[in-house]
Amino acid sequence: MDSQPFDLVVRNARVATASDTFDADIGIRAGRIVQLGLELPRGMREIDAAGRTVTPGGVDAHCHLDQPMEAPVRMADDFDSGTRAAACGGTTTVIPFAAQQKGQSLRAAVQDYHHRAEGRAHVDHAFHLIVSDPTPQVLAEELPQLIAEGYTSFKIYMTYDDLKLDDGQILDVLEVARRHDAMAMIHAENADCIEWLSKRLEAGGRTAPRFHAHARPLLVEREATHRAIALSELVDVPIMIVHVSGREAVEQIRWARAHGLNVFAETCPQYLFLTAEDLGIDDSYLGARCVCSPPPRNRDNQQVIWNGLADGLFTIFSSDHAPFNFEGTQGKRPNGEEVAFRHIPNGIPGIETRLPLLYSEGVLKGRITLNRFVELTSTNPAKAYGLHPRKGTIAVGSDADLVVWQHGPRTLRNEALHHAVDYTPYEGIELQAWPALTLAGGEVVWDGRDFHPRPGAGRFLRRGRPSLLPARPDAA
Amino acid sequence: MDSQPFDLVVRNARVATASDTFDADIGIRAGRIVQLGLELPRGMREIDAAGRTVTPGGVDAHCHLDQPMEAPVRMADDFDSGTRAAACGGTTTVIPFAAQQKGQSLRAAVQDYHHRAEGRAHVDHAFHLIVSDPTPQVLAEELPQLIAEGYTSFKIYMTYDDLKLDDGQILDVLEVARRHDAMAMIHAENADCIEWLSKRLEAGGRTAPRFHAHARPLLVEREATHRAIALSELVDVPIMIVHVSGREAVEQIRWARAHGLNVFAETCPQYLFLTAEDLGIDDSYLGARCVCSPPPRNRDNQQVIWNGLADGLFTIFSSDHAPFNFEGTQGKRPNGEEVAFRHIPNGIPGIETRLPLLYSEGVLKGRITLNRFVELTSTNPAKAYGLHPRKGTIAVGSDADLVVWQHGPRTLRNEALHHAVDYTPYEGIELQAWPALTLAGGEVVWDGRDFHPRPGAGRFLRRGRPSLLPARPDAA
Amino acid sequence: MDSQPFDLVVRNARVATASDTFDADIGIRAGRIVQLGLELPRGMREIDAAGRTVTPGGVDAHCHLDQPMEAPVRMADDFDSGTRAAACGGTTTVIPFAAQQKGQSLRAAVQDYHHRAEGRAHVDHAFHLIVSDPTPQVLAEELPQLIAEGYTSFKIYMTYDDLKLDDGQILDVLEVARRHDAMAMIHAENADCIEWLSKRLEAGGRTAPRFHAHARPLLVEREATHRAIALSELVDVPIMIVHVSGREAVEQIRWARAHGLNVFAETCPQYLFLTAEDLGIDDSYLGARCVCSPPPRNRDNQQVIWNGLADGLFTIFSSDHAPFNFEGTQGKRPNGEEVAFRHIPNGIPGIETRLPLLYSEGVLKGRITLNRFVELTSTNPAKAYGLHPRKGTIAVGSDADLVVWQHGPRTLRNEALHHAVDYTPYEGIELQAWPALTLAGGEVVWDGRDFHPRPGAGRFLRRGRPSLLPARPDAA
Amino acid sequence: MDSQPFDLVVRNARVATASDTFDADIGIRAGRIVQLGLELPRGMREIDAAGRTVTPGGVDAHCHLDQPMEAPVRMADDFDSGTRAAACGGTTTVIPFAAQQKGQSLRAAVQDYHHRAEGRAHVDHAFHLIVSDPTPQVLAEELPQLIAEGYTSFKIYMTYDDLKLDDGQILDVLEVARRHDAMAMIHAENADCIEWLSKRLEAGGRTAPRFHAHARPLLVEREATHRAIALSELVDVPIMIVHVSGREAVEQIRWARAHGLNVFAETCPQYLFLTAEDLGIDDSYLGARCVCSPPPRNRDNQQVIWNGLADGLFTIFSSDHAPFNFEGTQGKRPNGEEVAFRHIPNGIPGIETRLPLLYSEGVLKGRITLNRFVELTSTNPAKAYGLHPRKGTIAVGSDADLVVWQHGPRTLRNEALHHAVDYTPYEGIELQAWPALTLAGGEVVWDGRDFHPRPGAGRFLRRGRPSLLPARPDAA
Repeated sequence: MDSQPFDLVVRNARVATASDTFDADIGIRAGRIVQLGLELPRGMREIDAAGRTVTPGGVDAHCHLDQPMEAPVRMADDFDSGTRAAACGGTTTVIPFAAQQKGQSLRAAVQDYHHRAEGRAHVDHAFHLIVSDPTPQVLAEELPQLIAEGYTSFKIYMTYDDLKLDDGQILDVLEVARRHDAMAMIHAENADCIEWLSKRLEAGGRTAPRFHAHARPLLVEREATHRAIALSELVDVPIMIVHVSGREAVEQIRWARAHGLNVFAETCPQYLFLTAEDLGIDDSYLGARCVCSPPPRNRDNQQVIWNGLADGLFTIFSSDHAPFNFEGTQGKRPNGEEVAFRHIPNGIPGIETRLPLLYSEGVLKGRITLNRFVELTSTNPAKAYGLHPRKGTIAVGSDADLVVWQHGPRTLRNEALHHAVDYTPYEGIELQAWPALTLAGGEVVWDGRDFHPRPGAGRFLRRGRPSLLPARPDAA
Repeated sequence: MDSQPFDLVVRNARVATASDTFDADIGIRAGRIVQLGLELPRGMREIDAAGRTVTPGGVDAHCHLDQPMEAPVRMADDFDSGTRAAACGGTTTVIPFAAQQKGQSLRAAVQDYHHRAEGRAHVDHAFHLIVSDPTPQVLAEELPQLIAEGYTSFKIYMTYDDLKLDDGQILDVLEVARRHDAMAMIHAENADCIEWLSKRLEAGGRTAPRFHAHARPLLVEREATHRAIALSELVDVPIMIVHVSGREAVEQIRWARAHGLNVFAETCPQYLFLTAEDLGIDDSYLGARCVCSPPPRNRDNQQVIWNGLADGLFTIFSSDHAPFNFEGTQGKRPNGEEVAFRHIPNGIPGIETRLPLLYSEGVLKGRITLNRFVELTSTNPAKAYGLHPRKGTIAVGSDADLVVWQHGPRTLRNEALHHAVDYTPYEGIELQAWPALTLAGGEVVWDGRDFHPRPGAGRFLRRGRPSLLPARPDAA
Repeated sequence: MDSQPFDLVVRNARVATASDTFDADIGIRAGRIVQLGLELPRGMREIDAAGRTVTPGGVDAHCHLDQPMEAPVRMADDFDSGTRAAACGGTTTVIPFAAQQKGQSLRAAVQDYHHRAEGRAHVDHAFHLIVSDPTPQVLAEELPQLIAEGYTSFKIYMTYDDLKLDDGQILDVLEVARRHDAMAMIHAENADCIEWLSKRLEAGGRTAPRFHAHARPLLVEREATHRAIALSELVDVPIMIVHVSGREAVEQIRWARAHGLNVFAETCPQYLFLTAEDLGIDDSYLGARCVCSPPPRNRDNQQVIWNGLADGLFTIFSSDHAPFNFEGTQGKRPNGEEVAFRHIPNGIPGIETRLPLLYSEGVLKGRITLNRFVELTSTNPAKAYGLHPRKGTIAVGSDADLVVWQHGPRTLRNEALHHAVDYTPYEGIELQAWPALTLAGGEVVWDGRDFHPRPGAGRFLRRGRPSLLPARPDAA
Repeated sequence: MDSQPFDLVVRNARVATASDTFDADIGIRAGRIVQLGLELPRGMREIDAAGRTVTPGGVDAHCHLDQPMEAPVRMADDFDSGTRAAACGGTTTVIPFAAQQKGQSLRAAVQDYHHRAEGRAHVDHAFHLIVSDPTPQVLAEELPQLIAEGYTSFKIYMTYDDLKLDDGQILDVLEVARRHDAMAMIHAENADCIEWLSKRLEAGGRTAPRFHAHARPLLVEREATHRAIALSELVDVPIMIVHVSGREAVEQIRWARAHGLNVFAETCPQYLFLTAEDLGIDDSYLGARCVCSPPPRNRDNQQVIWNGLADGLFTIFSSDHAPFNFEGTQGKRPNGEEVAFRHIPNGIPGIETRLPLLYSEGVLKGRITLNRFVELTSTNPAKAYGLHPRKGTIAVGSDADLVVWQHGPRTLRNEALHHAVDYTPYEGIELQAWPALTLAGGEVVWDGRDFHPRPGAGRFLRRGRPSLLPARPDAA
């Protein structure tokens, strides 16, 4: 039998998976976990976790990195800085988006995106597709082929002029998901409602950042969520409603799940830690920093989101990291100007702060269990997008992607973060824990103080089928 | 470091936990899992699981064994035959009930029950308490002490004349649960409604077994469920609604959970595999075999229960094993007579068939994932009742309670079962899998053909606090 | 044909019924409306309504007058002062309660109550029964006989020690309602919950009036409402949930009605115009004046009640007039003392202010239509309790009970009211309308300034069957 | 005072309004009701209603007459035959649709429709508008002007290629309704879903009439209903969801109303008396006769619709009369051919049978009260569309549009009907009542045996504002 030494042993860990918490040593070889046990033999290297909590590396299933934008706007984070920030925040797998532009082939979008990633990523990564132009060619050939090649998920937008699909197109695309067993993610906001409200707000001179929230009230999200559910019900295919922000959409999703529909939902830190007031209580442009869609809501809605995290309504907790600088000409101030809310680049950074925020406020404040934390941030994203059990857990055979947690107060400051964005919306929040160590493929990429770069060592992951649901009986 | 050989290695297992499925060898020493890994060194004994699925031994958190009954009625299974049947069906931990009789002290009930278990049990076991007489003494002293001694759960009845508590008593008992962090299980049926209907049915000469279902329509369960939820909300304490049978109670529980209340629910095989027609479509007494409370419902309600198992509404899947012979004088025919439905001893056997039924019809037919099967039958019961992670999972440090599954058709026959009951309500059902091996504390108790008795080797388990919910922040 | 002159013509009225508003003269003879038309011939007397709104006289289907209390407590209003106040506030029919005391026969309670009414009432009246002791004799004989004699409704209490029935008793009584076509009114609050909370509040020294609301949170009402619905569903009989106070009970009632159950609901002014703060924001005893059950809630709940009035959820708007003086020894200060909240006589006065409050705040502020106002305050109570169309509308053949409304601001002051209570909870509210004239049986009892007494002229009404629902087909 | 004789007295009527039922003589002069009373003086003519029920003439607020279709299809009923059939079925006011075609001005559509009506109608009528092309001109000028001229309602389609509006257009049109106080009717079905399903059905060769129901499952209606509610909520304007067919849409409407939204709903006979099986259980073309949208559902859904009629969920019961012959070349067989389900002219006749069906099955079978019948079929349509109290009731000042009912069995046969359609979907149904007499404007148009034509005597009605809701406070 096996007598090789371990490359690394993480010793005395309080290991947490999505279901269990137990004390063990973790034996690692060739980047994988090969043994979990008591009193494992010595490894080439040793890390003493000293009774600390060790969780699987985070899987950030919703983040945007170096995604092509219309000039002059440009994302601040590319695969280098984005995966650096991820690693320093305990995230060891990211799945950003290869976005088709209307008129472009999906394949071309994917190739372009590979070029952007190549040689830059410090952690493993995969690509979701964004389907914005479901031509017959895309539906019949490109999409099925790409799914077969391991791009087993794609996103559908119900809003944004350059991305949105109409209901008929959504049905067509969902049918491909059903036939080829891919996971469809849906951005659910009603485009026409937003347009109608925005025009009226603008006509009234209400263009400050805070009016972004006025243009997207809860019902805009509720309507689209209901519609997305109906469309998926018609096609009989699972969907993932992404970045759910508040009570009304939550009620629709509860209704769907109670009726046996395979509707899954994701939420994000901005819906737990920000409110519409962060977009401004006056017309100051500072609020542009928190402009994202759907917008943050209020305290009551935050509580609804917390309940959904605790009780199992939500399947995934992602960052929706969308990195734009506040200053300069490429971000929140295109060409350096204070633009009307409709033209503010949409999104906020969060790839590095996702795990510490949920760990501190969720686990340590008694709102969710440690196991649920792992499930939401790592296991379920890995399952939903065909990466489990290679990713998303601490188990024999899994990649040695691990986070060792250190408890203790720490004030969140953008200057201490590793993304390339010039602000964090969470500046000043008091956290109770932070990753003391991040291992990616068995290697230290973050030691609690310093980032250990390894550009290009992050691998592209061909993904399998979603595994949140039981396999179909014939395949059992 | 450690160089002792393993007592036993289960090799090449397809290990399933509540969250993960992975291939590993399982190294066992002194009855516990000490290592999980690839290519573990040879053990004193070896079992080749040959790529078979291996799950944690089942935890049956709701079963009745040798519980004192009013003469001549007597349960067919005691701790010997009951745990024998459990083991042969893959269940390695049982939690039957130490039932207080009105006028009796709780302590006396517990002591009596220890006498009944002593030297007989083949697998580990713990006791729930049944509180039927919450005197000031019970509330202030006995119950808190017993909780402190590891009897960390108790059951409350809202029906049955000799057991039921009124709302004020329930509030008092729930307050003890809250203060001492115990889990309260609730049998939710409205006693007065049942009494009222039963009298009218009897007055009309409708006394055959099938009228048992007429006396307990869905609303009887719905009302009591709503009331139990309200009482627990008032006291602000988690509860477990046991043996939920159908749509109306399910809707109440969904409502509660959606509102952030800590209401948990259990269901049982009879609500998936039986209907009210099994109580008889005519006045035949054969239906007495399926008399249990709440009664089985219909196909639509079975589907509602399946949905609840799949989507997370239910936390636990138990047997509610209540073993009475159909023939003879001690069981379903007290003194050998065909009695009116109200007097038929209530309950059906199921301790041995629980896991194979759910595995076959749930996992192999694609209704629930394998991980969810483990969660429902083993992990969650262990968490809910303070036994996790010693019980309920396959992890380093856990007891070596394991089931190796063998796929393949098998017709369920009572003659092949190991309980002492003279029938099974599931006679003739075609299963697709059965335990090929059950390990309890690292020892083979069932090898797929023969039971390996070890009376008295089953240990009494002092239990800790429920761990379904996050620890309170101050304890984090 | 008819050539007798009218006794009275109300001319140029803007007549409002529960469905229509139209201009007409109203011809009255022998206390009844005999003609409605344009340009009616002259009557012996004439009243020019001058384009004013004329509604049917109010039917107050929930009020307490001279109901026996335990000494020293005594209701301030008897049939004299109570019907005087009613008339001056536009109410021409009252239905107070003949309350059975435990041990007493229902018949005796009714006879006693007739003695109290005799020779005193200024307006027509009927009696609801209160069944507090449903002995076999009561169920089999007294109640059916009294129903046959025109006491076609009775009230069931789920709380108050001296009145409450348990679930089995409620079922028995509801069965009588079903068999004899009576309407059952239900006071839905969970007695045990209130007791449990009250004891704890008292143990903590929290005895001020404001803790009355703490002892009866929304869930106490919700639970009992759900239970009452379930019991009526079991018996298959309509019920009227009285004095519904807030969102949670409303949701239960909506659920029931959406499921086709004949569950009706009543609400009262205190749930529109008072909040829990009126019981005190500190420990002042002044709040005792607003102690009633269920207690007033908050602004959000007021809005829920308004919605239910507007959209048809509520069938009846009553006063629940329960008249106790604040000063003296017989009312809110028994023996002149400031007692703990549990011992404060329960109830508030409102028989005179019911209609003006709803007319001003409901109709004139655009929350409900004028027709809905008539339906809620007059037509539906008459239908629910077997008085329609004699009472409750302005139609040919109906009693000439009319209110002529005068618009214009008026500050509500207790000194201007006609009850015998020393306060009104609505002191200082600005109304926008008040009855300029009340006709009872064609006679002026209130002329906008003076009350015209006619003690004993108010007739006792033997009532018919409820007519809110369709007659059963066989009776069609 | 008035001493002229009545033109007509309807004597001894059992008059039913939406709220009351009472015995009276009805005095009529110049086409209007001028008096209601006991023993009215003799009129020029007398009709003895002999204790029969007399209801207001029906208002059919949803019917299609002589609406321009694409050749060769043509509606079988014009204003002559359509209003003839209406009158013989007790309906004295009809509101068909002046439909704008894309590219056409609304004004032109209205003028064309007046030409079609002119000189033909036997009963009073008004026009709803159909807005299919909401150009800036239409929104800013034509629609506001037409509303001001008494066309105070319009219909919006969410399906049908030549009629449907997108969400943005719907918002624009609803805003006009809000600003000018018009009532918007919405045909709620999701066009893209229907298209998507239809294509797939056709591709599979499933083109028989019964597949019409497969192409429009309940969720297609539910989704559009939810969306319509959201859009009206955004604009804060009442809407009327027309021809609601089943449970899922009903649940959405209940939700909306429970949340205080002014969402009204209409249903039609086809959802009470037909099921999808009437479209065929095999591929026979006979089912084409029952092709209408939404399609009929099943028995369970019929019950849901009955519940909604009984409990107040529905505001209006209309026919949605859409008259196409089954034989010939202009109707259900365009050019005489059996076409695929998508091309079958949509709609069924029902203008004459609406009232007798609901009276027989609703009132006489004890499902709804007589008053509710009047409210649903006459009063509420009149209120919703600005015709009340001139239409929709029996009151002083109202038009003398009356129906005298005759009870007794009668088999429904198309040969006995007065429309120009060659079938009725209700052939063979046993009714329990039929109009014995219809008065329109005080003249007999139907005497229970013969139709009394009066082409052109039916007047066009300029309508006022909807009056279902309270007037806004400032207008009170």
